[in-house]
Amino acid sequence: MLTKTGYHRTMIAVIKNIAVPKGSFYHCFKSKEAFGLAVLAAYGDFFAHKLDKFLLDDAVPPLERMAAFVRHAGQGMERFVRRGCLVGNLLQEAPLLPETFPQRLMAILAAWESRVARCLREAQAAGAIASDASPALAQVFWIGWEGAVMRARLVQSAAPLNQYWDFFPHSMTTKTPAQDGASADNPLPTRNTLS
Amino acid sequence: MLTKTGYHRTMIAVIKNIAVPKGSFYHCFKSKEAFGLAVLAAYGDFFAHKLDKFLLDDAVPPLERMAAFVRHAGQGMERFVRRGCLVGNLLQEAPLLPETFPQRLMAILAAWESRVARCLREAQAAGAIASDASPALAQVFWIGWEGAVMRARLVQSAAPLNQYWDFFPHSMTTKTPAQDGASADNPLPTRNTLS
Repeated sequence: MLTKTGYHRTMIAVIKNIAVPKGSFYHCFKSKEAFGLAVLAAYGDFFAHKLDKFLLDDAVPPLERMAAFVRHAGQGMERFVRRGCLVGNLLQEAPLLPETFPQRLMAILAAWESRVARCLREAQAAGAIASDASPALAQVFWIGWEGAVMRARLVQSAAPLNQYWDFFPHSMTTKTPAQDGASADNPLPTRNTLS
Repeated sequence: MLTKTGYHRTMIAVIKNIAVPKGSFYHCFKSKEAFGLAVLAAYGDFFAHKLDKFLLDDAVPPLERMAAFVRHAGQGMERFVRRGCLVGNLLQEAPLLPETFPQRLMAILAAWESRVARCLREAQAAGAIASDASPALAQVFWIGWEGAVMRARLVQSAAPLNQYWDFFPHSMTTKTPAQDGASADNPLPTRNTLS
């Protein structure tokens, strides 16, 4: 519900609609804020675990791991077209949330970023990314990603996630003669290459 | 208020808090939805006009026009740290909005995209972007931009907008000997170049 309708509407529903007596709710959580933070922490961990599943998969080249995560996210969004990313929803609501939320959101984004940064370093070590690619790329990935999730929700399709990803890695892919040859058959790798 | 708190909270406030008698409100707008759509249309036009001011400025090279728009947006966000982009806010709320909204949001985004696409074509004609750069770049720009606006609002700083933009054009900039020389003094242009 939080990923569909956001914090404030969920909190109203928690109190009004859900089949949990208020006493039980407040026995478990000292406040709605505490409940929201617990859900956010669980979501952050769940998502970090999901990222690890894809990004630590040594059997696959680093950028392919990222691509697999993007495909997986797109499949999820096409199955549940009304859901977004909880962190993205809360980012949008951030100015209206209790003061504790922005810090937690930043910490979760930092945890996700460190995972992508590690994967990009491995891509760099493998020569798939330019050796001078900025360490800030991992942060930029998530900055734009939340926009792509919003757009995917609007058009109820994974296409914006794929478009974003198509653009992202190719802009930092090392150009080699072999890749040049491959790209002649596939327009994506060449579209951001330097001519 | 829509850019700060979103559609649903604003509509409640329109009815409850604002010093407009209900009769007057409904004299002007046949429904809250009609009011929301009118504000959205006005915002879309206002923003398209702002884009034109920057992106049609022939006195400045095309990518510099984009950079000027990004700086201007960042200044606005630093002045009004709790405000986001109305379109971004409504994107996040899209699954909860009346059915008329998603179509309008897509039309507004398409209008913004056509402006950036034109600017990028001029950049291409001027040799500042690879000749095979994808026409989809303009769409990708806005896909990621709304994510950058959300992040800027979270950290209450223009830094995410600048990071996003630093990454964006350099990934499609034509590498010339002159630019190579310039980039030695400035790490940004090289960070996504192909080695």
